[in-house]
Amino acid sequence: MKIETVRGGLCAVKGVRAYGTKEGHNGLALIEGKGQAVGMYTASKIKAAPVLFTKRQLEGSGGQIQAIIANSGCANSFTGEQGTRNAEKMAELAATSLGTNEEEIEVASTGPIGKQLDMELIERQLGDVVTELTAEAAGSTTAAKAILTTDTFYKERAIRIDTGDEERVVIGGIAKGSGMIYPHLATATATMLSFIYTDARLSEEILRASFEDDVANSFNMVVVDGDMSTNDLVLLVSTGQGGAISEGDFKEGLNLVCKELAKLIARDGEGATKFIEARVKGAASVADAKEAAKSIVRSPLVKSAIFGERPDYMCGRIIAAIGSCATVSDVDPGRISIGLKGEDKDKDKVSAVKNGEFMDLSGVARELMRDKEIFIEVDLGLGESEATAWGCDLSYDYVKINSG
Amino acid sequence: MKIETVRGGLCAVKGVRAYGTKEGHNGLALIEGKGQAVGMYTASKIKAAPVLFTKRQLEGSGGQIQAIIANSGCANSFTGEQGTRNAEKMAELAATSLGTNEEEIEVASTGPIGKQLDMELIERQLGDVVTELTAEAAGSTTAAKAILTTDTFYKERAIRIDTGDEERVVIGGIAKGSGMIYPHLATATATMLSFIYTDARLSEEILRASFEDDVANSFNMVVVDGDMSTNDLVLLVSTGQGGAISEGDFKEGLNLVCKELAKLIARDGEGATKFIEARVKGAASVADAKEAAKSIVRSPLVKSAIFGERPDYMCGRIIAAIGSCATVSDVDPGRISIGLKGEDKDKDKVSAVKNGEFMDLSGVARELMRDKEIFIEVDLGLGESEATAWGCDLSYDYVKINSG
Repeated sequence: MKIETVRGGLCAVKGVRAYGTKEGHNGLALIEGKGQAVGMYTASKIKAAPVLFTKRQLEGSGGQIQAIIANSGCANSFTGEQGTRNAEKMAELAATSLGTNEEEIEVASTGPIGKQLDMELIERQLGDVVTELTAEAAGSTTAAKAILTTDTFYKERAIRIDTGDEERVVIGGIAKGSGMIYPHLATATATMLSFIYTDARLSEEILRASFEDDVANSFNMVVVDGDMSTNDLVLLVSTGQGGAISEGDFKEGLNLVCKELAKLIARDGEGATKFIEARVKGAASVADAKEAAKSIVRSPLVKSAIFGERPDYMCGRIIAAIGSCATVSDVDPGRISIGLKGEDKDKDKVSAVKNGEFMDLSGVARELMRDKEIFIEVDLGLGESEATAWGCDLSYDYVKINSG
Repeated sequence: MKIETVRGGLCAVKGVRAYGTKEGHNGLALIEGKGQAVGMYTASKIKAAPVLFTKRQLEGSGGQIQAIIANSGCANSFTGEQGTRNAEKMAELAATSLGTNEEEIEVASTGPIGKQLDMELIERQLGDVVTELTAEAAGSTTAAKAILTTDTFYKERAIRIDTGDEERVVIGGIAKGSGMIYPHLATATATMLSFIYTDARLSEEILRASFEDDVANSFNMVVVDGDMSTNDLVLLVSTGQGGAISEGDFKEGLNLVCKELAKLIARDGEGATKFIEARVKGAASVADAKEAAKSIVRSPLVKSAIFGERPDYMCGRIIAAIGSCATVSDVDPGRISIGLKGEDKDKDKVSAVKNGEFMDLSGVARELMRDKEIFIEVDLGLGESEATAWGCDLSYDYVKINSG
């Protein structure tokens, strides 16, 4: 199997057209592509109207999908019956303008909580977008831009998998997310939005199994601020117009796309000046490794120390973060080691903590913290399991963005 | 029963002498008071040497205590065997200088994690402090100041309870805490430190039961940043030199002191410009109410919105915070109401959200957010249980303090 990056995002996938528009904070994206969809939804106890609507739609249609309509600028969350009606209305408008079945339209929203959608604006923007739908790369790019909120760049990724038998499979996706990022996506139900399409010919079962596993190790491992959104929604759609592929190969490709999109969200975290990757290995279980890795990138103190380029404070706070994990089996401080890397991944790790003892953190470790990417590897020295989480530092700009 | 505030802090309690000193970041406090102690310790999986030492000491002595020695400037956490020896050495030095039994000396530390104590400095500071030990108010105040780290003011409180039969009971305490505040104190095991003394004649059982219950509703309900410390330690000591008191009256008095000290920690949160009290009522259980209240004051987004005096963003993010509670029973968005108050508690609450609907948040609600104290009352509309948590906003200064 050979994997190569291709351009075009969503539109690199056979059978997908898209377009998006934005006016100030208000964006609208339309993605058209007939296929089989599986969805994962925020685990929040308060789910936004479009999340509940899309979940219901996919259950009703057995996962059959024609298009996705997504807006930014209003989350349509905590909006009562009016909110439900507006989500339905969005699907109805999209179905009418595409001349298709409204039962197979999915809806997503992102923006402030507690206010109603401006349906006139959405209807007008939809009119503009429908006429521009295209299978060219611009379709994916404009859609990716339309769903941004506090994001500073659009997030798009596509790969082509050469399975060897002249079969080609493309997986392409877009995502948005910058603040209120602590997704916990579950099959039963950010704002993180991501729409991933593939032309692979695969059954719904394989799509679902691959997706659940990949999301658990990609989107669910991103933390910007530890605030879970009522609107997180990720959809994977297969148009089935491309080649055949084994479950294993597809999973590997999907995993790559999901992780890249997840990392882009971490890189674009609100106010971020540095990207953080925290890998925890030597854990007694994968669940332990995941909790520990997420606790590190969630900690405001670890994040502030990284913003301030202080490896000494950072390491002490990593220790505290690991200690605070409620469900992690007992840890042994004397077995904990921490290695650090900056942007140059070919360099050897700097040993910051070795078997429970702090090393000299004034020289090369301090130097390394100036980089824009900080890789933290924690070895708990207890077992064979590992996990990786991604996040960003906590800067003045995070406070500025969220207080204004 | 009559309760009045008295001056003197710890030293208002019969049988207690104290003193403290500070040089730069390094402080040392000594509190002498023979009695019966009960302790609560951080739930962190990585407990600092003094926490483990003090727990062991109290188990060994059956709670009999002579004195507490506490330092700031170094947490003696993640310091291996050397750290354990240094904690023991602190107790030994204190016992020698007081001419007492080293098995009945407790030790506490706060400061950066991962570095060893400067034992020469501690020995020298102890020498200075021992000669100054006093039962005057200055003893408590200097001790309270000595244990501060990033705190901006010292925290001290004392009350006298008149039980009616010419019996008088005093409860006095000091506390410190400003950052890394998300205490989860458990009997089995910030840095938040608090030492509370009383001269009440009470059994260890009553002391313990009262303390566990009060800590659960006071110190454990304070959130500055959501980072749990390896060093949190709270001790309650009864010298037994005062009057008799019923369990109920004592609990009421102790509750008052614990809550006041907890609120002082929230008020002095790192970088805080506003104090936040979040009361959640109408919950299906107290556990639900507690989780929801803490999730509100923990949310970086809620905190940033309060710093920015934005009631609209704040309410949306409160909804998201409530939704994100993992263990809360299902909530019904349509039943949620949010009321707001500023500093003037006699004023009526401003209705910000009413049965799931956002009210106009541009006028009086916006006005109120300029106050230095913000009271949030959330009614989940589901049951009869309630809980209150305390915290502070997230300001540029939090980032500054923790990145420098």
